[in-house]
Amino acid sequence: MSELRKDIIGGRWVIIAAERSKRPDDFRRSTEVKKKEKGKFCPFCPGNENKTPPEVFAVREKGTKANQPGWLVRVVPNKFPALQRGQTPFIQKSDDGLFFWMEGIGVHEVIIESPDHNRELADLSIGHLEKIIETYRSRMIEIQAEKQYKYIHLFKNKGPEAGASLAHPHSQIVATPIVPKRNLEELKSSSELKERFGQCIFCRLIEEELKRGERLVYQNDHFCVFTPFASRFPFELRLYPRRHSPWFSEIDMAEINSLARTLKLVLYQIKEVLADPPYNFYIHQGPNPNSGRDCPNGVKEYYHWHLEIIPILSRVAGFEWGTGFYINPISPEAAAEFLRPKK
Amino acid sequence: MSELRKDIIGGRWVIIAAERSKRPDDFRRSTEVKKKEKGKFCPFCPGNENKTPPEVFAVREKGTKANQPGWLVRVVPNKFPALQRGQTPFIQKSDDGLFFWMEGIGVHEVIIESPDHNRELADLSIGHLEKIIETYRSRMIEIQAEKQYKYIHLFKNKGPEAGASLAHPHSQIVATPIVPKRNLEELKSSSELKERFGQCIFCRLIEEELKRGERLVYQNDHFCVFTPFASRFPFELRLYPRRHSPWFSEIDMAEINSLARTLKLVLYQIKEVLADPPYNFYIHQGPNPNSGRDCPNGVKEYYHWHLEIIPILSRVAGFEWGTGFYINPISPEAAAEFLRPKK
Repeated sequence: MSELRKDIIGGRWVIIAAERSKRPDDFRRSTEVKKKEKGKFCPFCPGNENKTPPEVFAVREKGTKANQPGWLVRVVPNKFPALQRGQTPFIQKSDDGLFFWMEGIGVHEVIIESPDHNRELADLSIGHLEKIIETYRSRMIEIQAEKQYKYIHLFKNKGPEAGASLAHPHSQIVATPIVPKRNLEELKSSSELKERFGQCIFCRLIEEELKRGERLVYQNDHFCVFTPFASRFPFELRLYPRRHSPWFSEIDMAEINSLARTLKLVLYQIKEVLADPPYNFYIHQGPNPNSGRDCPNGVKEYYHWHLEIIPILSRVAGFEWGTGFYINPISPEAAAEFLRPKK
Repeated sequence: MSELRKDIIGGRWVIIAAERSKRPDDFRRSTEVKKKEKGKFCPFCPGNENKTPPEVFAVREKGTKANQPGWLVRVVPNKFPALQRGQTPFIQKSDDGLFFWMEGIGVHEVIIESPDHNRELADLSIGHLEKIIETYRSRMIEIQAEKQYKYIHLFKNKGPEAGASLAHPHSQIVATPIVPKRNLEELKSSSELKERFGQCIFCRLIEEELKRGERLVYQNDHFCVFTPFASRFPFELRLYPRRHSPWFSEIDMAEINSLARTLKLVLYQIKEVLADPPYNFYIHQGPNPNSGRDCPNGVKEYYHWHLEIIPILSRVAGFEWGTGFYINPISPEAAAEFLRPKK
């Protein structure tokens, strides 16, 4: 089992998942090795269902059996999980008070988005995207039921440069036994800003961005997409539901359809305008609503779930690592102009 | 001139340096393009001194002229600076209180480490490394004299995957008109931990790591190097001066010699053990001691400068971007064992 460790000065936890790999040779030029892996056996393709742990959920054609072909979307536990299911771990502490750690308890699942090895989200039908989003919601609801999973993080890595170790299109869910530092910061800040502005700061920003329009890329009945005013990365995007809601799991069917159309459009624009770059996306939401005091009551009022998309076009370097300060070589207004669909 | 912008929710500033590049085509597959640039003209090689802005400092053979060959280490302003020299900028604010920005005032210099295009720090002599470190100190002292530069960040990117846009070995200095978020957090945390432990938390950790030894990679009279207990990245290293000091500029000649030996050894170990990977390193230090209230008096007692080295062996992906939580596939104890010089 992996271990969580806390950096006493930085205040952040890390996951030491040492089982995943052991010797320096495993790290040597790992990127180059991966490029050679094209055409290799794929455990996510139909017919290879027995090469993954047994599925925990699937959208299937009627009459097909679990762990057999016939699925449209399939969810399996990660074969090399960063965290494993279990009960709330105890935080342990060295006698000198300097070192803190706990067992690596959590959930790590893979959502295989399509049977087709070569079709990315931008290439799928709206109906197929709806099934993927319904699957996201369904997994969130099931994992939320267990209170020891304090935060549920859903994300996608597309392309080796974005950290994908397998090419077959997939997303991942990692549920952690603590609320991660970055999410805690956003909660604290949005709680303070709710006091200052008298309303959810995300609702306020959405209102203003829709009015200004200069960073707006797309909007429909339920969602809007814009480039953030202080974008860290070129062509970074934020996708917000217009209805205030702290948790992704509260999305309804009309919103699922709207989100499918929004995602397809913006991922298609990224693909076309930026020549199919690698990208990451992830959802930010409130802590697990069933996790007790890790999810204070106020979260309902001041937090607003959203999805962040980062095309991988530049490298993070010594300046950014050292300061947390980013240098972005294109203005968010110019990026929005390029990404906005042309009539 | 570039612009600094603040993310009201995340609390972090970013630099929008839009002059540096403009169209989506400039971002398309930028990594692949860079690989093809090998063998291209190099503005940092001797003989091409007129292709950079005029030098602001150099270590030169006696009798050679500024901006002519004959230098061992050469410092020039960055030709495409992220920030430009000027007076303290005013923070500006939109009427609705949502958007904050200021002029991109600061310093951005390049330290060309050697006339030799192909010799990296690990390949240079101790004497040459001493000259580079003396240059670092000299630039720090000069930039610190101007109080509008609140924080001075020195860093190195080696290899395109680490963000280096030119292959010729070089480091960079960026001085910013605010203290960056990550450094502010470390200052706040080390101030609190000083109260709790009754001594500088870095001095305390160094003591403990030297005693335990399991994460120690190297030590000499003035420096020690270990893998942090909660390492974010495989083979991440921290290099600490044993003498308590908040600012790099306070380093003395004996320490410069010791640091040259320490850097050469650990960079050589990284090169040998990990097959010459790309890497980033950067110095963390207190805010500019001449910057007034941005550098509270207590900094002297609770902050301790250090150098962090990150070999680029894995990719930052959607999990890390979304949560600030890192998954490290090798334990810091195993990493230290591999990197420790064999007798």
